Amino acid sequence: MKKGVLLKSTITGREFPAEMLEEFTLDGESLEVIQKDSATPKLRPGRTLFERFTDFIPFETDLSILTLGEGNTPLIEAGSKLKEYTGICGLLLKNETQNPTWSFKDRGSLACIAMAVEMGEKVTATISTGNMGNSIAAYGAKSGIKVIVFVPHYTPHEKIKAMGIHGARVIKIHSPDYSQMKKKVLSLSSRLNLRIVSGNGPIRTEGYKLTAFELFEQMGAEFGSVPDYIAVPTSACGHIRGIFKGYKELFEAGVTGKLPKMIIVQAQNNSPIVSAIKKGLKNVIPFTDFHTVAEAITSGNPQGGDEIIDKAYRYGWLAESVSEEEIIESHRRFAESGYFVEPASATSLCAVKKLNESGLIEPGAKVILVLTGSGLKDTDVFRYHQTDETEVNIDELENIFDI
Amino acid sequence: MKKGVLLKSTITGREFPAEMLEEFTLDGESLEVIQKDSATPKLRPGRTLFERFTDFIPFETDLSILTLGEGNTPLIEAGSKLKEYTGICGLLLKNETQNPTWSFKDRGSLACIAMAVEMGEKVTATISTGNMGNSIAAYGAKSGIKVIVFVPHYTPHEKIKAMGIHGARVIKIHSPDYSQMKKKVLSLSSRLNLRIVSGNGPIRTEGYKLTAFELFEQMGAEFGSVPDYIAVPTSACGHIRGIFKGYKELFEAGVTGKLPKMIIVQAQNNSPIVSAIKKGLKNVIPFTDFHTVAEAITSGNPQGGDEIIDKAYRYGWLAESVSEEEIIESHRRFAESGYFVEPASATSLCAVKKLNESGLIEPGAKVILVLTGSGLKDTDVFRYHQTDETEVNIDELENIFDI
Repeated sequence: MKKGVLLKSTITGREFPAEMLEEFTLDGESLEVIQKDSATPKLRPGRTLFERFTDFIPFETDLSILTLGEGNTPLIEAGSKLKEYTGICGLLLKNETQNPTWSFKDRGSLACIAMAVEMGEKVTATISTGNMGNSIAAYGAKSGIKVIVFVPHYTPHEKIKAMGIHGARVIKIHSPDYSQMKKKVLSLSSRLNLRIVSGNGPIRTEGYKLTAFELFEQMGAEFGSVPDYIAVPTSACGHIRGIFKGYKELFEAGVTGKLPKMIIVQAQNNSPIVSAIKKGLKNVIPFTDFHTVAEAITSGNPQGGDEIIDKAYRYGWLAESVSEEEIIESHRRFAESGYFVEPASATSLCAVKKLNESGLIEPGAKVILVLTGSGLKDTDVFRYHQTDETEVNIDELENIFDI
Repeated sequence: MKKGVLLKSTITGREFPAEMLEEFTLDGESLEVIQKDSATPKLRPGRTLFERFTDFIPFETDLSILTLGEGNTPLIEAGSKLKEYTGICGLLLKNETQNPTWSFKDRGSLACIAMAVEMGEKVTATISTGNMGNSIAAYGAKSGIKVIVFVPHYTPHEKIKAMGIHGARVIKIHSPDYSQMKKKVLSLSSRLNLRIVSGNGPIRTEGYKLTAFELFEQMGAEFGSVPDYIAVPTSACGHIRGIFKGYKELFEAGVTGKLPKMIIVQAQNNSPIVSAIKKGLKNVIPFTDFHTVAEAITSGNPQGGDEIIDKAYRYGWLAESVSEEEIIESHRRFAESGYFVEPASATSLCAVKKLNESGLIEPGAKVILVLTGSGLKDTDVFRYHQTDETEVNIDELENIFDI
């Protein structure tokens, strides 16, 4: 890490060395990376995003050696069907399904692997039910770092294989509850002398900052400004806080003149953060024994949730949850506009529609939806969709058309 | 289409109007797009690839309205493990799995939909067992054009659903043989007044040209030259001829000073083109009743094959086929370097290794492998791979580590 890089509690402001293995303080406070006593960061000339934003990046390692080609994903105007459906004319899509392992996780994995390389670690570990384990396994393979993935025992065979094929060791854990399993595994970091990263880790979050930098460049070139809103399906919280942290650093460096407002999106059946915000509470409301088709956002009691709730009040963010029917409906509407996403990614479409109908999104606002993961990651959802199929013999092919 | 755009037989040179629905002449000759009597194309300043290469693009439609964000995929140095395995130090990967529907097909689909839009067609159709139908279905959804996909009856349920969810009509055909079904369906174009596109269609091929233009820019910036070789897993032939056509047009316009040599790669169990070249024949050797894990390249008797064979002799291309064991081995090696590809994409790794060992690739050559489709497209292949899995109770977690 660069000189002066520290971890700082987002709640109490206490400081810790950047090298520590734990992702939370003993009191459960989320940590974030700060660069202390450094000069005001500036944009630099350069061929790659890493070079142009080098002042904002805490790593010393050359990321272009560790990359699998994540990022540089399209920011694209939503088609007329999606604009009409949501009522938002300034609707844009950031398609993170076009990353090397087909989810946004790759940006965080690059950061995790960079940290492991800088610390001289031969092994790194994570806890996952899918996308995250897959992503770290791939980045570990690229850089020659052994990856261990802890998964709940009910993780589908194919998801386990997709991690294992990269050479990762997969450990299936029988546990009555995923949140409990996650806390237990994270608590082993120091005892095992193993960096075990979760979706909200402070190092991972530095990877998600790059999404903000990339959006800043894309908006500059194509749409002329910082967006008004960015909707992010939210579970462990690392993604939403990473993107916001990137914009905040640009704002504080005087590069931009405003901050976007984040939109926290969750499934109604598992909305520990959104429910708390709607009730005006300061702490997450834990959810257990829930079911949602949005399998990629199933942290029922996210350790980083309180920080996000605090930020929501402080910066005027929006929060919305969506029903299972609304998720299926949004999933379908995305597909009918050309985007086949995983159900978790679909949540944001209906969420911004509802917020717009409530008058919470001002007319003319630029609203970005982040498509977080590929539909190929979760094809169980097909059971909810009718499609148009016909079966015919080759000899009778002409008969099915009106010639 | 622009003024002066025609279709020309690649075999006899006969010319046809650009608007014709058929993809082959009655004698089975492949067609390609030419721009007659136009000024020498030049590179133009512009923000997008479409703008910079507009002189080389036959469409009048603004492609930036129809795009789903295909292209702009990474060209990345293969890691040391892959370089050592193949013995090729100048090994590069072009990762087309990072397209909107996670295969190279998206570039061709953009072209097909542009054509349909320019012709005022409300419906377009294709024949597919997977990637192609999926891709056209998505692009049709984006542009509001109804898509019909003809598939063999044995196409897996999930692949059919992935097309149907975009709103496509899927017609499952019972036929004793895929090649026969394909010819029969293509022959219906005029009778049904329906543009039915195959993987080798002249319009589709114009989309694949853009891969060459993008590589030209990426090589210019990062690697300094046109590559020496580009290896492409080959089935219907549209991809390999499209990429080469792009480079040929740049060469003829004086933009570049050399042509890359293409490497035709096929599975040994279905190598109609490679077998013919190895025997010095001029025509494809049809394969029937074969099995290969490389399911995305299973044209046993490709209609466009003779043209590719002709080009191979004329331009000094290379050709190699690989066994089932070699495909599995290459699939594994890609994954262990961070790239989870579909088996068809894996064929090229072992092919270039063999060509290099035979001394056919000169030391220091820049060799690009095109990763054509995501591993998520075909997870059946997992059965061939051992992975490292452990199962444990949460209470016994510490016991599996040596603490």
